[in-house]
Parts: sequence; structure tokens; C-alpha cells
Amino acid sequence: MSTPCVSAFKWVPPFAQGVVRDLRVRWALEEAGIGYEAQLLDFEAVKQPPYLRQQPFGQVPAFSDGRVEMFESGAIVLHIALGSPALMPGDEAGRARVMTWIFAALNSIEPAIAQLAEIDLFHAGEAWTAERRPQVEAEVRRHLAVLSGQLEGRDYLEGSFTAGDLMMVTVLRNLRHTPLVGEYPVLHAYQARGEARPAFQRALAAQLEPFEQAA
Amino acid sequence: MSTPCVSAFKWVPPFAQGVVRDLRVRWALEEAGIGYEAQLLDFEAVKQPPYLRQQPFGQVPAFSDGRVEMFESGAIVLHIALGSPALMPGDEAGRARVMTWIFAALNSIEPAIAQLAEIDLFHAGEAWTAERRPQVEAEVRRHLAVLSGQLEGRDYLEGSFTAGDLMMVTVLRNLRHTPLVGEYPVLHAYQARGEARPAFQRALAAQLEPFEQAA
Repeated sequence: MSTPCVSAFKWVPPFAQGVVRDLRVRWALEEAGIGYEAQLLDFEAVKQPPYLRQQPFGQVPAFSDGRVEMFESGAIVLHIALGSPALMPGDEAGRARVMTWIFAALNSIEPAIAQLAEIDLFHAGEAWTAERRPQVEAEVRRHLAVLSGQLEGRDYLEGSFTAGDLMMVTVLRNLRHTPLVGEYPVLHAYQARGEARPAFQRALAAQLEPFEQAA
Repeated sequence: MSTPCVSAFKWVPPFAQGVVRDLRVRWALEEAGIGYEAQLLDFEAVKQPPYLRQQPFGQVPAFSDGRVEMFESGAIVLHIALGSPALMPGDEAGRARVMTWIFAALNSIEPAIAQLAEIDLFHAGEAWTAERRPQVEAEVRRHLAVLSGQLEGRDYLEGSFTAGDLMMVTVLRNLRHTPLVGEYPVLHAYQARGEARPAFQRALAAQLEPFEQAA
């Protein structure tokens, strides 16, 4: 295995700093104690053939380590987690639960949150959003209420930290431009608990560092 | 291991028949040659505590087999695939590719398709959709074009059929109320190729059977 390589951006606008999806992979690698290199790209490079052969949709992150070549932050985090007891228990039942939460974060909770962020960050002021935004916010609240219920009385979704929490916390971070998470004290504490982890702090600093250099 | 059990609906309206997400799990089990039982529920039952303990969001499918208890169609299909050479190669590089495509289907391609279906099936006629729908359709087309490019000259995403194709074909099926897939001959043939598999046909018939009894 060669040193893992994660693609990321040289710079993104402030609204995206700290929430670009390579953060998930960096965080997983930090939790697993695996060193890595970042492949830093600009917005032009991710749309060019050399990179599109790694990631056909022109997004970050892509990942390689000499044994695998893959993309999709969820898939990469799961791949890392399957090899690391810091991110996933070793028994089949526990692994199934972690997989459940990874997909719940990305496929049940993120879609509504992403729609809300899309409205607020990319379509602000467009006429259609006045009617649509309240519908989307209601859907986000419905999911946050369920998630809050799941976390009542426990620090993490399965008791102790797993890759499922890693994914869920990064999904909740996409609401940072709204007061929504703050309205659910259990979720607010959960997100803060995840973000206080030293591995998260190192991952976040590593994503932000080139942005600060570019500024 | 006891007989796997998959939750599903007793009946759904015609627009949802054949695309409810238990189809994915049924298809995976059929490809893997694993028998299963369906736990048939109505819309009331999925919102009640006994089921919410299995699936806190009140959706189908949930899955159990005496060893694992899980939900999220993506997670369940991946769990089945990790144990079946019919759905996933045994080498690490090949598994990483299949995981990549499962997540690409659910997290990169499905969100835009789901937004389009949501507009057409649940919000038809609302004023905001006149401005918004063309934006969403453009995003769907952008993803379909990339996927079509990936499939150029091959039957399946990694050459032979995997759980990644299973997931991708079920995502494309959510465009069946539109002519979009038909505009990409490569994708149209790909979807038809997946749907022609005997395992898919058995899974589809099994989902539809209780709906026909209820009618």
C-alpha cells in the first residue's frame, strides 16, 4: 500500500470552506491513524480528462492508495472503516448498524438538508424559493426530530463513536448557515461532541490550510 | 441465520408500484440465491412504535436475518453483496469499485432524480415548480450524460453485473414517468439489460403481488 491520496480543492468560497466532502475522508483517516497526501486541484482541473478518469462527475474527493481507486465520500469512508476498529466494530451485527447509519446520513437525511442549502446558497432571491423553502425546511425538521430521538441519552448513535457518526455530523454541518440544529439540544451537543474530537480538528485544519495560503 | 425478513408495503398507489425500495433488497437476495420472507405493512403500521424500533424514519425496507438488524436499502444491499460473489468481486480493488457505484447511485445521481420525481408526483401544479423544474431537469441530464459516457461500450459499470448496477438501475427507474432515460440510448439499453435479469423479474413480481391481491 502506498500513501493514501485524497483529492481536494486548492480554494473554495467561504460558504464551502469546512464542508467540502474531502473533510469526511480526512477525518476517517485521522481517526484510523493513517497518514495521507492531498491532491490539490482548482475548479478547472476537476473538469479535465486526467481527473475525470478518476472521478467522472468532476467532484472531490477521489481516493487511491495503491490497492484501490475510488470516489464518493461515503464509499471511501466505508472502505477505510472496514479496515479500522476505530471506525467500526468487528462483529457482523455491529458492522451492519454502522453501514445503516452511513446510508441513513447520506440517503435519508442529507437530501433534504442539501436542498435547503442549495436554496439558501445558490438560489437565494429566486421567486420559487418563497413557496418551496418552507416545505423543505419542514422536511429537514422531520428528519432532525427523528435523529434527535435516536440520540436521546447516548453520546453516539451506537453508544461509542463510529463512521456512522462521522458521516452524520458532517451532514449536520451543512445546516451551519441556519439556526436549525441549535433548536434540537441533543443534536447540537452531538455535533459539538463530534467536532471536538482531535481527529476532526486535524482534518478540518488540513482542509482549511490551503485556503488560508491562497487568501 | 434465520430466513431473512424484508419489510414492504401491502399496497401503494400506482405511481409507486414497482419502485418502492424493498425492490432493491428483493433483487439482491434473488441474485444471491437467498430465500426471504416479506413483512407486509400498511401506512399506519410503519408509523407505530413496534416498527419504528426497527426503522425510526417509518420507511421501508428494514431487514433482519437473525444475525443483523438494519435498514436503508443501500446498506442492506451492500451487506448482502459483501457476502455474495454474484453481487461483488472478492478482491479489495473490485469491492471498492462496487461500493463507489452504490454510493454514486444513491448520493450523486438519485438526489436530482428524486427532486424531479418529487416535483412531478407530489407538487404538480404548484406555482414554484414552473421556475424550478427546468433547473432540476438540467441537473438530471448532466448526471445522465456522465453515466452514459461511463457505460459506453460495456454492458455494466464494471464490465459484469454487480450490486452497483443493481442500485443504478433502480435509481434510473425513478424517471419512468419522464422520457429522459430514453434520450440516452446507452442508458436505455443498460436499464433494459438490468430489468431483463430473471432475478429482477422475480423481485418485481414479488413486490407487485400483494398490490394485485389488494386491488
